[in-house]
Amino acid sequence: MNETDRRTAEGILYTDEYQLTMAQLYFRSGLHERPAQFDHFFRTYPDYDSHKAGFCVNAGMEWLLDWMRDATFRDEDVAYLRSSTGRGGQPVFGEDFLTWLKKGSPGFFDSLTIRAIPEGRVVHPNTPLTVVEGPLAVAQILETSLLSHLNYPTLIATKAARIKDSARGRTVMEFGLRRGHEKGANAGARAALIGGVDFTSNVGVSHVLGFPPKGTHAHSMVQVFMSLGMSELAAFRAFADVYPDDCLLLVDTIDTLQSGIPNAITVFEELRRKGHQPSGIRMDSGDLAYLSIQAARMLNDAGFPDASIVLSNDLDELVIWQIITQISEEAGRYGVDADHLINRLVYGVGTRLITSWGEPALGGVYKLVAVQDGGRWVPAIKISESAEKTPNPGNKRVWRLYDQRCKATADLIGLEDEDPRALARIMLRHPSDHTKYRVLDRDDLCEIEPLLIDVFKDGRAVGERVSIDDMRARRKADIDRLDAGVKRLVNPHIYHVSLTQNLWDLKQRLIESAMQRSH
Amino acid sequence: MNETDRRTAEGILYTDEYQLTMAQLYFRSGLHERPAQFDHFFRTYPDYDSHKAGFCVNAGMEWLLDWMRDATFRDEDVAYLRSSTGRGGQPVFGEDFLTWLKKGSPGFFDSLTIRAIPEGRVVHPNTPLTVVEGPLAVAQILETSLLSHLNYPTLIATKAARIKDSARGRTVMEFGLRRGHEKGANAGARAALIGGVDFTSNVGVSHVLGFPPKGTHAHSMVQVFMSLGMSELAAFRAFADVYPDDCLLLVDTIDTLQSGIPNAITVFEELRRKGHQPSGIRMDSGDLAYLSIQAARMLNDAGFPDASIVLSNDLDELVIWQIITQISEEAGRYGVDADHLINRLVYGVGTRLITSWGEPALGGVYKLVAVQDGGRWVPAIKISESAEKTPNPGNKRVWRLYDQRCKATADLIGLEDEDPRALARIMLRHPSDHTKYRVLDRDDLCEIEPLLIDVFKDGRAVGERVSIDDMRARRKADIDRLDAGVKRLVNPHIYHVSLTQNLWDLKQRLIESAMQRSH
Repeated sequence: MNETDRRTAEGILYTDEYQLTMAQLYFRSGLHERPAQFDHFFRTYPDYDSHKAGFCVNAGMEWLLDWMRDATFRDEDVAYLRSSTGRGGQPVFGEDFLTWLKKGSPGFFDSLTIRAIPEGRVVHPNTPLTVVEGPLAVAQILETSLLSHLNYPTLIATKAARIKDSARGRTVMEFGLRRGHEKGANAGARAALIGGVDFTSNVGVSHVLGFPPKGTHAHSMVQVFMSLGMSELAAFRAFADVYPDDCLLLVDTIDTLQSGIPNAITVFEELRRKGHQPSGIRMDSGDLAYLSIQAARMLNDAGFPDASIVLSNDLDELVIWQIITQISEEAGRYGVDADHLINRLVYGVGTRLITSWGEPALGGVYKLVAVQDGGRWVPAIKISESAEKTPNPGNKRVWRLYDQRCKATADLIGLEDEDPRALARIMLRHPSDHTKYRVLDRDDLCEIEPLLIDVFKDGRAVGERVSIDDMRARRKADIDRLDAGVKRLVNPHIYHVSLTQNLWDLKQRLIESAMQRSH
Repeated sequence: MNETDRRTAEGILYTDEYQLTMAQLYFRSGLHERPAQFDHFFRTYPDYDSHKAGFCVNAGMEWLLDWMRDATFRDEDVAYLRSSTGRGGQPVFGEDFLTWLKKGSPGFFDSLTIRAIPEGRVVHPNTPLTVVEGPLAVAQILETSLLSHLNYPTLIATKAARIKDSARGRTVMEFGLRRGHEKGANAGARAALIGGVDFTSNVGVSHVLGFPPKGTHAHSMVQVFMSLGMSELAAFRAFADVYPDDCLLLVDTIDTLQSGIPNAITVFEELRRKGHQPSGIRMDSGDLAYLSIQAARMLNDAGFPDASIVLSNDLDELVIWQIITQISEEAGRYGVDADHLINRLVYGVGTRLITSWGEPALGGVYKLVAVQDGGRWVPAIKISESAEKTPNPGNKRVWRLYDQRCKATADLIGLEDEDPRALARIMLRHPSDHTKYRVLDRDDLCEIEPLLIDVFKDGRAVGERVSIDDMRARRKADIDRLDAGVKRLVNPHIYHVSLTQNLWDLKQRLIESAMQRSH
């Protein structure tokens, strides 16, 4: 895509056709500037087939706000819309509507207000992560781009948090650019950093976010030397000459145990004699747990007990878990201390992180929940096949309740005029099962925290830009306050997302009235 | 991401760190301008767990070439690299290397030559889809971006071809922008069009590729009217007023059979009285086969046998197959002609197409296959865990052999100086199993076609831009020339990818010699 086309395809036309046709319908019906509210939320945690997330990590808002600032109906966009024709050859869009679109530009989205749960926070299903309020047609046109900018980053931040957890605090590097979904991989690298990976090999994203990019070398480097009649050892020596203080060697181009590791040790000894400390080795194939044990044994025997062992090759949280388990069970048999080995491992995670393998999309949706009429919010409902799928209506607030241990015990969704902090006893209703509820004493709670904050208002982002490090700190704090059961990699406990009694009553009333009207 | 950062993150630093550190190593070793050759290929077809592709559709090259033309080491990129430091605080990159990078810009990739199988062509594992030839360090730096620009589009073009096939020629629309991997969804929409979908809802991509974007309306439109005390019928009427000749109504906001379809029929009758032909209905939930039959019955009874029935909601090739099968079996029971119904269906395919659900990455790799030494190509090898994974070495050519029916019977990989068209009898060796081979008589073949063509040479793309329509025509022609067994959605026949005897011999010789050197 050339630069001109890119600006078009990633500008305000980065949307679905029906957003524009609906906006024109609202315009013609005189509803386009009617204040409306949409919730962005997801319905279920990612389910990776064999395992399932017990929480998600929110991400993506900053780049969405950047997009909103730059997206505008340029003359060429309006000219394109003017040229669109329907089945009968008639123009799809009228001049009246096009004039209205153009009138709002630049700053087309400035009339919206956005509240959101901040990036890096732990989030759960069916809670509004983002609430968009403003003129109906403007909020409608934002839908596709908002979902595109938020769904994928949240998916990847979540996967990264799981992988980081499985690695028991060891360094995790994101290597997925070559297997990501084209330019989306940049958003994935950023989300992975928010979610828990320590570094990425992605140079551009590292640069713009202020992280040092990481990497080792590829098999091709060894192959070049060998093709020219030299050896793996010569290739390793050349690498050590150029990077004596960052010498991390890929040892599986020919044979890991017979060739790669012995040659690496030779080079490491040469480096040591020159006063340099070798960095370590990387293995990208084979039985990584077994090879790690053998590598540790050989490196230890040669006096390099601190050299890192970097593992890569289709890793994810379950594979890392399996590797660590196998090492714990087998290392001793080879005279290697399992804990010491586990603490020198570093993980390079590519395809399965950047694509969220097993569940490559987050089902985030954007649903109308309220429209203003006569100055007050009228809640909107959509009846779904199942009670669980029916969205929570109305202008809402979200609260996180922490129990006496200061662990998060539930997210509570209430109406805008409700504040559970003012109540002595708090009723928590299950969102769809009328038989399930809980009552909590205010005195039994350590804290009640509002989760949605203003992020966009009066045409600009609210507050200072937050650093990725601060987002990571939020994530860490939130995950620390999760119950251990919720954090399990397999079969996690279900975290409670509850409704206040008032919201529950409103939802039932609206469902009933919609059903009646359909009959 | 703001525009300045985007230019950085999507420019020449859209790469992995190790490409740059390896390039510097080649520079220091005096190998950076040594001509080298890399093959891009994938090892296995996408496997969607329950089903597996029998062929792929190649895509992505045009946008890669666009990227190559614009990517250049700008002053700010070099300044960033200059500021990179290693573990000990020392600079990672030296001034000598940075000067060399800068010297080549703009036009950093102009010294490369690329041969490739054209976009839209059917392709198979372990055949070079793209061959990059040129200075070692330049070709190395291209690796990540090349894979990023080609792997994902080929994955999506392949999925789209499967979905289009399952839809039995009916219209398929791509609806996935909101669930794609951020901006990558644009590349996915283009690939889907190459692979077989007829239209996309993505407005920007439709615009830059010259397709009309398609869409209907969302549940929110009906919800707005209902929240303001009006009805689904009022919402439908408003839509019909604005789009009388493109009236396609979403009928499942409240209740498909009780409310949505009866209301749609009321509006269609009103349109008909005004001389307009209604377009159809869309259903996005429930048992789509059952609902399609009921919808067809109701529309037929009301005199709208030609109104389209658009289906959406997590569709993929298996779901479409299931829907068609169920309709074939059950429609008659309700007095509906199954074939007539199947021929009025239209499919909107979102998440499962844009993410290639079940296999969200193509394992495309980029492997060094030859280096020049003394003016001749020396083949390079990399020994892998298994014989199947060991890449085919050397400077190669790819041929497609068509049998007497003019169906493709094998892709044959040979060395550059081989031309199977000159042979009376052609030996086809299995790429790794030495017991398997086939001999074909030239006279028994309808055609032998070279597949790799020059796409980039002397700093520019070779030939005219090819339209998406032409790529679609290539795809259609190629798929028509596949044996039916290869096209099966489940358990396809294995298409033969074979080596010439000379290439087989070379590969064995190199494997042996590499193994010897490691001991």
